Amino acid sequence: MTISNAVTISVGDELLAGETLDTHGRTISTALAARGCRVLQHRVLGDDVADIAAAIVAVTAFADLVVITGGLGPTLDDVSRESLAKAMNEPLVLDVAAEAHLATWYAGRGRVMPAGNIRQAMRPESATCLENPHGTAPGLQARIGRALVVILPGPPSEMRPMLEGVLEVELPDAPRPAIVIRAFGIGESDAAERIESLMRRDVSFPVSTTVSQSLLSARLRGNGPDDRDSIELLAAQVEQAWHPFVFGRDEDTLASVLGGELAKCGRTLATAESCTGGMVGAMLTEVPGSSQWYPGGWVTYENNRKIEDLGVGAKLIELDGAVSESVVAAMANGARHRAGADYGVAISGVAGPGGGSVDKPVGTVWVAVADDAGIDARCFRFSGGRSVVRDRAAKTALQLTRLRLRGDESDLLWQRDARS
Amino acid sequence: MTISNAVTISVGDELLAGETLDTHGRTISTALAARGCRVLQHRVLGDDVADIAAAIVAVTAFADLVVITGGLGPTLDDVSRESLAKAMNEPLVLDVAAEAHLATWYAGRGRVMPAGNIRQAMRPESATCLENPHGTAPGLQARIGRALVVILPGPPSEMRPMLEGVLEVELPDAPRPAIVIRAFGIGESDAAERIESLMRRDVSFPVSTTVSQSLLSARLRGNGPDDRDSIELLAAQVEQAWHPFVFGRDEDTLASVLGGELAKCGRTLATAESCTGGMVGAMLTEVPGSSQWYPGGWVTYENNRKIEDLGVGAKLIELDGAVSESVVAAMANGARHRAGADYGVAISGVAGPGGGSVDKPVGTVWVAVADDAGIDARCFRFSGGRSVVRDRAAKTALQLTRLRLRGDESDLLWQRDARS
Repeated sequence: MTISNAVTISVGDELLAGETLDTHGRTISTALAARGCRVLQHRVLGDDVADIAAAIVAVTAFADLVVITGGLGPTLDDVSRESLAKAMNEPLVLDVAAEAHLATWYAGRGRVMPAGNIRQAMRPESATCLENPHGTAPGLQARIGRALVVILPGPPSEMRPMLEGVLEVELPDAPRPAIVIRAFGIGESDAAERIESLMRRDVSFPVSTTVSQSLLSARLRGNGPDDRDSIELLAAQVEQAWHPFVFGRDEDTLASVLGGELAKCGRTLATAESCTGGMVGAMLTEVPGSSQWYPGGWVTYENNRKIEDLGVGAKLIELDGAVSESVVAAMANGARHRAGADYGVAISGVAGPGGGSVDKPVGTVWVAVADDAGIDARCFRFSGGRSVVRDRAAKTALQLTRLRLRGDESDLLWQRDARS
Repeated sequence: MTISNAVTISVGDELLAGETLDTHGRTISTALAARGCRVLQHRVLGDDVADIAAAIVAVTAFADLVVITGGLGPTLDDVSRESLAKAMNEPLVLDVAAEAHLATWYAGRGRVMPAGNIRQAMRPESATCLENPHGTAPGLQARIGRALVVILPGPPSEMRPMLEGVLEVELPDAPRPAIVIRAFGIGESDAAERIESLMRRDVSFPVSTTVSQSLLSARLRGNGPDDRDSIELLAAQVEQAWHPFVFGRDEDTLASVLGGELAKCGRTLATAESCTGGMVGAMLTEVPGSSQWYPGGWVTYENNRKIEDLGVGAKLIELDGAVSESVVAAMANGARHRAGADYGVAISGVAGPGGGSVDKPVGTVWVAVADDAGIDARCFRFSGGRSVVRDRAAKTALQLTRLRLRGDESDLLWQRDARS
């Protein structure tokens, strides 16, 4: 009885009222896809017995696996248990082991169990309870026809380990090999052209690309453990095609990779930020252990701070403006020298919505990297609103620093000749 | 023919593969709820004609309105158009006005329309096309039985204005009055107790609370325009009960509200950050026009930066440690004086995962606010991983500054007596 496809159902009025964003659909899809199980549909339903029961009956007619999350709590609006019983046409009975678990849980916390909570130990007669190590509500597992139905509690910290437990038993094959390649600074269409033959739908492992928060990802996935080498080979091809814009894989961030490279060669980086206001420092210090390679930086939002803290010439600002090649270069160099760091990176730009001009429209940002070999200052023209411009500017600063560190020379997306 | 309930459907293989998080369900639910229309179900389907057509037939049997997003693009895996035709049992015909729109769109961009894109001008015979001002794909609108079916393109920037256009025609009543109260620094159960009578389900407008990213929200919603005064009165009650932790409403952020108050009294604020590494500066500068009240700040991650840039005594750091009352107070005062600002706010803590000790475990963070009346330094013990600790520390710094500015004295959640 192999499980090759599934339907997922999230239960909760708050999900349909627009109050809470349902993320379980994606979490479960990702976990199922990793084990070779295809999700056919995802449904979001309110706390209503008739609706949930009808959906269970409908989808068990065609799906191998139905994963339901939510509606297992102790209050009267938690009705997933009753809905499953109705769909199975069975009465609810008390599960003795689940009752004992509930009693232990409350006793261990020195609390008296509210009387109504005994509902959580009920199950449809032929269903079994799934142990919940991180909460009071046990999960439920049952068969309807040939379909396996699983109900898991809504809180992610309880749901995720229980889901893994179910999948280990029901989909015991090793997860399919999967690699995500992460890149920044290359356009999606340019990137797609470079790997066109790998993206065709008729190859064994078609590569798909997505862009999220200006980061470009290529997803590669095999069908089974035997495909590991093929996927690794494919990843190397994508990495080569997208060189030097690829910075890492899977959970890597620009900051974590840059930090790793700085640590490896025992070098340090200081920051000087104007329009990003501390975002680069915040990204760098999100990396555990960043104190090893990040001494700190300056948020020089007003011109006086650039002059007093980083030694930028007042005359330079007056002549060229704060958003200029000369000022951003002086900022990067100033940060590097004052912090006694090997590298200095600086950003100065017009994030908008105000402050733009004909010469320097909103989105114009200068980024400079300084080291003992000199200063590389470049002009960018970012599209998007204030948040997007700032985010792209901060990530560009990290990528430019990474490229400088590696000696990889390349123009980045959004780069402009300042004189054009 | 009033529309009182709806089903929403998001279409796209990438949504079921776990690659992309579906957010249209929530966006549309929120917009419909604001106009008094209840969402009964949300479904996510792959790019499959049979599946989509079957779902349309199933849900039009009971819903007044069906809003479908996605699958209107020019490529062959975009099949929402064909699916609607199949559900309606009608042929697809060419819409002359839509064809003209397509031609104009490409001509205006100096591009030749790819031949296959003419598909986007097709519609089921009795359906009408909905103009798309921001893209090539027109939407579709049709009747199946008494249900209204609307298909909108997937890109949010195209979908949202088209949705508003449909709702203005089909649900013309004024949106229901709704207010969201935003608070920070009070626990959810404490907050719920303070407004217990307002949260009961049997009152006219029950208040619901949620916590997201450590921000507490109370949601209030009336049934029609006549309830505006009642909702406003209710909001005032919640604001009073949660005083002084309420910082704003709806889209307000701690930074935008603090910035507004600084601007109003013509004062300025400088920052000195250690474990948050620039997050407070980044939050403050996310507010347009922040240069009016934010001169800048220092990211003093290593001790030398605290000493050289902010004038913190080396002896203090040696004696008390960098995470201490004396050092954070000196940082706040140093930032204030060096920037010539009215207020200085400083953060120094142990964000983890390393660096904790018995005296100062991971999550211990000192926050200080300095002004001409003196320095207020407090110790916090934040739970959660590195990201959560840093986010809470940064928001606490903003809230403490706001409270100091207003002269509201109060202990915040997570605050600890440093000597205990």
